[in-house]
Amino acid sequence: MNELSRPLDALNKARDKRVIVELKNGRQYVGKLHAFDIHINVVLHEAEERVDGEVKRKLGVTFIRGDTIIMISAE
Amino acid sequence: MNELSRPLDALNKARDKRVIVELKNGRQYVGKLHAFDIHINVVLHEAEERVDGEVKRKLGVTFIRGDTIIMISAE
Amino acid sequence: MNELSRPLDALNKARDKRVIVELKNGRQYVGKLHAFDIHINVVLHEAEERVDGEVKRKLGVTFIRGDTIIMISAE
Amino acid sequence: MNELSRPLDALNKARDKRVIVELKNGRQYVGKLHAFDIHINVVLHEAEERVDGEVKRKLGVTFIRGDTIIMISAE
Amino acid sequence: MNELSRPLDALNKARDKRVIVELKNGRQYVGKLHAFDIHINVVLHEAEERVDGEVKRKLGVTFIRGDTIIMISAE
Amino acid sequence: MNELSRPLDALNKARDKRVIVELKNGRQYVGKLHAFDIHINVVLHEAEERVDGEVKRKLGVTFIRGDTIIMISAE
Amino acid sequence: MNELSRPLDALNKARDKRVIVELKNGRQYVGKLHAFDIHINVVLHEAEERVDGEVKRKLGVTFIRGDTIIMISAE
Repeated sequence: MNELSRPLDALNKARDKRVIVELKNGRQYVGKLHAFDIHINVVLHEAEERVDGEVKRKLGVTFIRGDTIIMISAE
Repeated sequence: MNELSRPLDALNKARDKRVIVELKNGRQYVGKLHAFDIHINVVLHEAEERVDGEVKRKLGVTFIRGDTIIMISAE
Repeated sequence: MNELSRPLDALNKARDKRVIVELKNGRQYVGKLHAFDIHINVVLHEAEERVDGEVKRKLGVTFIRGDTIIMISAE
Repeated sequence: MNELSRPLDALNKARDKRVIVELKNGRQYVGKLHAFDIHINVVLHEAEERVDGEVKRKLGVTFIRGDTIIMISAE
Repeated sequence: MNELSRPLDALNKARDKRVIVELKNGRQYVGKLHAFDIHINVVLHEAEERVDGEVKRKLGVTFIRGDTIIMISAE
Repeated sequence: MNELSRPLDALNKARDKRVIVELKNGRQYVGKLHAFDIHINVVLHEAEERVDGEVKRKLGVTFIRGDTIIMISAE
Repeated sequence: MNELSRPLDALNKARDKRVIVELKNGRQYVGKLHAFDIHINVVLHEAEERVDGEVKRKLGVTFIRGDTIIMISAE
């Protein structure tokens, strides 16, 4: 298993890019991936909360606790 | 990954500033971020509990257990 | 991050004072904070269980398992 | 924080006394606290299961897994 | 706290005896306690699944994951 | 406690034999137990998903995450 | 227990092949397994979200947090 094939490497490549973060409670946050750690705690910049594809709130810098996250993908 | 790009650094920058803490049960606490740890246990000062944007209770110093937290953002 | 800004310090300052402990199941315990540990297991003295602000049961010395706790604040 | 102010010390003082153990699923066990560990796994002797204050089952020696427990108090 | 007062000692005394294992999902397994570990993973021999006191299935050797268990008592 | 009385030994004896794996969500997988680890992550070969005793899907090699498993028994 | 009989070896053999990942919330992701770790965090390439067998969304590179996963099998 080489260095580049670990899941956190994929997050590292997404750093400073816009990502969609989906939570266990069904909410979706979209923002620039500023930071993450091994617990998948993440910090988004210029974050928005979306419901059914529509922006519900603008949040700025947002810390999301890793254990509430289902999935992170590029926007 | 430099020192400043870790999620807890974002919390550290928010120290002594007003933040919104959203919980898994849907409740929202707003207060000054006084302390936090690696479990994301947090202590707010001058905390208020809000429901649908309205203040429901004033709580003063409040300890919130990290595993109930979804998200922390600037107010 | 100095010694005094950690979440457990806030609990330590509340020791022997009356606190409200709110649980994930919606129940509320009020009592004198006698002890706590890093799991946020707590022991209250002269504890009461409250529902909608009314005392439902008087419990005396009560051990509460940390992972059921949402929040601890001064009464 | 002295030796006597830790939560497990409160359980230790309750050893061999009758306690009420309340579980996350709403059930209540009453019995003599025979043993416990840091996970709050407990063993009750002469245990009874109670529902709404009435004895539903007599169980004798009963092992209860700690992560199902909300609260332990003196009977 | 002497050696004999730990919760796992109670399970050890129940080894090779018939026990009732109750799960978080409400199911009940009855069988001879063959093995257990610190996670409270257990193996029953001659296991039966019971619903409302009636045998629903005979299962033989059965491994039960500890985190699904509420309680273990003598049959 | 001898070597043969640990729960994982029971799984080891079931290796390459057909087992039923029951999940917390009520689903049942039946297949040949190819591998397992201390988290009770398991790999089944020639796996089938069953609902109410009927085959719903044939899956081939299937990895099942341990924390979703309630019980493993011989078919 | 030889090297090849561990659950993560099965995932390793599936690397760069198309897999189905089923989540606790009922959703299904299909994509090429690019990376995984011991928490079963996975990264899929060319990922699609499917509901009832139909493609609902195309996602590209997708990080899925391990604790939301029930099962991974070959497509």
